[in-house]
Amino acid sequence: MANFKGHALPGSFFLLFGLWWSVKYSFKYISQKLNRKCHRNHCYQRLDVIEGAAKIICALVGMLAEQFVPDGPHMHLYSSQEHGWVKLANWQHTTMYLFYGISGVVDVLSYSPLKLPLGLDRLMLSVAVFVEGFLFYYHVAHRPMLDQHIHSLLLIAIFGGAFSIFLEVFLRDNVTLELFRASLAILQGTWFWQIGFVLYPPWGGPGWNEEDHSNIMFITMCFFWHYAAALLIVAINYTLTYCCVQKCRRISGEMDIGLGVWKQKGDQASHTALLNGSDEE
Amino acid sequence: MANFKGHALPGSFFLLFGLWWSVKYSFKYISQKLNRKCHRNHCYQRLDVIEGAAKIICALVGMLAEQFVPDGPHMHLYSSQEHGWVKLANWQHTTMYLFYGISGVVDVLSYSPLKLPLGLDRLMLSVAVFVEGFLFYYHVAHRPMLDQHIHSLLLIAIFGGAFSIFLEVFLRDNVTLELFRASLAILQGTWFWQIGFVLYPPWGGPGWNEEDHSNIMFITMCFFWHYAAALLIVAINYTLTYCCVQKCRRISGEMDIGLGVWKQKGDQASHTALLNGSDEE
Amino acid sequence: MANFKGHALPGSFFLLFGLWWSVKYSFKYISQKLNRKCHRNHCYQRLDVIEGAAKIICALVGMLAEQFVPDGPHMHLYSSQEHGWVKLANWQHTTMYLFYGISGVVDVLSYSPLKLPLGLDRLMLSVAVFVEGFLFYYHVAHRPMLDQHIHSLLLIAIFGGAFSIFLEVFLRDNVTLELFRASLAILQGTWFWQIGFVLYPPWGGPGWNEEDHSNIMFITMCFFWHYAAALLIVAINYTLTYCCVQKCRRISGEMDIGLGVWKQKGDQASHTALLNGSDEE
Amino acid sequence: MANFKGHALPGSFFLLFGLWWSVKYSFKYISQKLNRKCHRNHCYQRLDVIEGAAKIICALVGMLAEQFVPDGPHMHLYSSQEHGWVKLANWQHTTMYLFYGISGVVDVLSYSPLKLPLGLDRLMLSVAVFVEGFLFYYHVAHRPMLDQHIHSLLLIAIFGGAFSIFLEVFLRDNVTLELFRASLAILQGTWFWQIGFVLYPPWGGPGWNEEDHSNIMFITMCFFWHYAAALLIVAINYTLTYCCVQKCRRISGEMDIGLGVWKQKGDQASHTALLNGSDEE
Repeated sequence: MANFKGHALPGSFFLLFGLWWSVKYSFKYISQKLNRKCHRNHCYQRLDVIEGAAKIICALVGMLAEQFVPDGPHMHLYSSQEHGWVKLANWQHTTMYLFYGISGVVDVLSYSPLKLPLGLDRLMLSVAVFVEGFLFYYHVAHRPMLDQHIHSLLLIAIFGGAFSIFLEVFLRDNVTLELFRASLAILQGTWFWQIGFVLYPPWGGPGWNEEDHSNIMFITMCFFWHYAAALLIVAINYTLTYCCVQKCRRISGEMDIGLGVWKQKGDQASHTALLNGSDEE
Repeated sequence: MANFKGHALPGSFFLLFGLWWSVKYSFKYISQKLNRKCHRNHCYQRLDVIEGAAKIICALVGMLAEQFVPDGPHMHLYSSQEHGWVKLANWQHTTMYLFYGISGVVDVLSYSPLKLPLGLDRLMLSVAVFVEGFLFYYHVAHRPMLDQHIHSLLLIAIFGGAFSIFLEVFLRDNVTLELFRASLAILQGTWFWQIGFVLYPPWGGPGWNEEDHSNIMFITMCFFWHYAAALLIVAINYTLTYCCVQKCRRISGEMDIGLGVWKQKGDQASHTALLNGSDEE
Repeated sequence: MANFKGHALPGSFFLLFGLWWSVKYSFKYISQKLNRKCHRNHCYQRLDVIEGAAKIICALVGMLAEQFVPDGPHMHLYSSQEHGWVKLANWQHTTMYLFYGISGVVDVLSYSPLKLPLGLDRLMLSVAVFVEGFLFYYHVAHRPMLDQHIHSLLLIAIFGGAFSIFLEVFLRDNVTLELFRASLAILQGTWFWQIGFVLYPPWGGPGWNEEDHSNIMFITMCFFWHYAAALLIVAINYTLTYCCVQKCRRISGEMDIGLGVWKQKGDQASHTALLNGSDEE
Repeated sequence: MANFKGHALPGSFFLLFGLWWSVKYSFKYISQKLNRKCHRNHCYQRLDVIEGAAKIICALVGMLAEQFVPDGPHMHLYSSQEHGWVKLANWQHTTMYLFYGISGVVDVLSYSPLKLPLGLDRLMLSVAVFVEGFLFYYHVAHRPMLDQHIHSLLLIAIFGGAFSIFLEVFLRDNVTLELFRASLAILQGTWFWQIGFVLYPPWGGPGWNEEDHSNIMFITMCFFWHYAAALLIVAINYTLTYCCVQKCRRISGEMDIGLGVWKQKGDQASHTALLNGSDEE
């Protein structure tokens, strides 16, 4: 939807997932570092399934919104009266959401008895982001200069993210890549909001002058400020997570003193189980 | 051949190989997961040789068709009467088929006593796809807008596939990449058919309006719907294969109950043989 | 700052870091080769922290210089009197320095108790270089031909460096990549100086003819001569470092003769400590 | 030199190296497969040094030829009389040869006592090829269409080769990449000759019509025919090498029958030595 809400909706989705990833992967990494192994594997699997379900729901919401807003196509693709396609922009956005939905379905199926190959969930997420990128790339032709430029900056975040997620197919559980992905998702989120504010100011009033070169220069720079902010957010989330985990550990550590020998044995056992488990996976 | 059949022929070839790969690699992966080792290695080698032979035959059919259709060049490259090249488009298509033929020859030779290095078969397939991509890239200049666009979308599938196959040179037997390749081959196949339908409608009648921007927007989106369909096909094939393997296993499991100890020994022996075999390869 | 000093300042920073890296990584590699393990790990960690601090200082100097030169924006971004952005070029340069500052902060934090994941420092450096590259890419539009060309050559060094540093995220401590990075940093440094000399000759006088094609041809070639010189500098630094390490070793070797057995034991102990340490990291 | 000889000279160099590599790496791979370990390591090191020396000589010949042909610049860069650069095309070619010379120097130094890091030789070769590519890229602007196109096809071989050699920095001794490099070098060689024949026919007479689109279509296709021929040449060299090694082995095998036990011991010893050697390298 070429209005403020049409950019705020996907922006919120990306922001949500970016924030969630920055917390989730920080926690996973830090708790591994500090040697806490509390039902880890099963816990993360369940989280992944829930995340997949959340993706499906977000994608469905997005698709329905694009189709059934008052000026949407209401599932009509070709109008035989006007001999023309109906609301193709909305259909393109629906297609973008569709691939995120597919990615969510693969996330959920990854832990089904079908034993989908590891890495397929990342590949599908990468494909979804690539599809979004290609659709945007062809989407913005024949638009004013500022509009093209502000969307082409988005492509940096999109293709950067798609490439980085593609690397995760082969370098799974690399925390650096995972936090990088989180930062790029936050960047996409805030940038969608920014596009909304620039092109369709929600308080009414005219948009920016789309042919002014200095606006373009500012927007370029602004994009990277958004990224600096995204990095800051990830850093804050990491630090907060670190403090929480550290605190929990100190509390549980005090309780564990009397149980030292017993715990050590249990750890070994769970470790062995884990190895077998990961072997089987 | 710039007509419907000239696009349907390669489309069918790609579709055939895509479907075949999606079944083959699913089966290979699932049967490994479920621990069935029935003459595996030799079996797959024979399959690879047959696949190579099929590639050679397809390439030959394609080359002959391009050369000897009624309006083809019939192996004449330069006409000294007209001081000009003869039917260069057909010659370019012949060249594309040629490289797939070379890839087939390397597939077949891989298991000859020549002991070709592992990975060479994937490299040659990747080269064949890259050559197809470059030829298409230079092929479509000076054409109407829709024609250029519909072929340039194909380039996404081609170069994506070529890159992914190139990765297989180093990450051989990575099932995620193999299924990705299958899905991109199916996409190419169906897209060739789509190109045929759009530019040269088989029921006669005029083609689409090649300068209408909304047609271009629709075609872009349609390309990704094809990919969603390709993913669905791969998913269905994977699931069917999973069910088959599961069923076979249950049947053979019932027969094996009385033979447990004997089988275990045999497994170990075959496993040792396998290790030696793969070492030698 | 679009003047000689505005190019000499970043040029000097890059030159400094390039020279320092070429010595540091040569020393690290050669002393490992020749089996000297003098408090190595702690020593390099301290160096990395100092390097990070140096990066922060350089970035701060750069940012302050861009903001508070006489014709700078003095932290004003938007002028409500003139209804326009203030000195956007300076703001863009400030943004470039900002990301190098962020990279320095991550370098310093890498050895804090926060246990940042390994590779994050390289990722942030790579991001800083990419940001510099993208900002330059959009920066040079609407300029004379020679100006555009001389900056676009810089992009080769920038994106080459960014890509190579990105590889270091996964291939940490690969001396080939590290020396390559050093050579590209030196290249950037000398090229910034060259740009200053060509576009804003410090001795006054007119700049070069910006529309003469032969000037562009010369500049292209000149860029690669700079790289040849950068390679020569790295080679000289490597050789000098090699000679120094060799000499030190001979001296300490003479002292060690009487202490052989003792040293061997100590080595084993420190080696074990090292392994545990690297395990923990 | 913009004439037939100026293209034939580098063409011959590339062809020579391509043929040599296809034999050398085939032999290395096959003799490893067939378990012959005759002074291998030292032998190959010596070969590498000789290869580096050959590179230096070729580069010197090329540089001298470019500078001192009758219409060359004779080491003059700037003519103060005409206020202009002298023969920049020749200087650019000299620069290309220079980087191949640097690569040769690094090859030779790799086995000096300086203990250059492994992979540096490949990196320098890759850099040399990249530099050639970038120089060509900027070289061909402002030329007729066919001239641009025929050189831009060369860029496929150049950048493909540069990328593949860059991969060898990390995947050293990967025979697939080495044979791929050989094939691309042969392609470059024959294509340089082809360029010479097309643009500067040695038998005098006018060149081809540079604005005819069908010439461009033919040249595109012709480029890939050259590659098919290059693949064939590599395949023939591989097969011939295989037959030779097989034959030698049979002869030496007959001699070895009486010495079986002794040889086995020797093999183990040399194998241990090899492992230590490769460890130290």
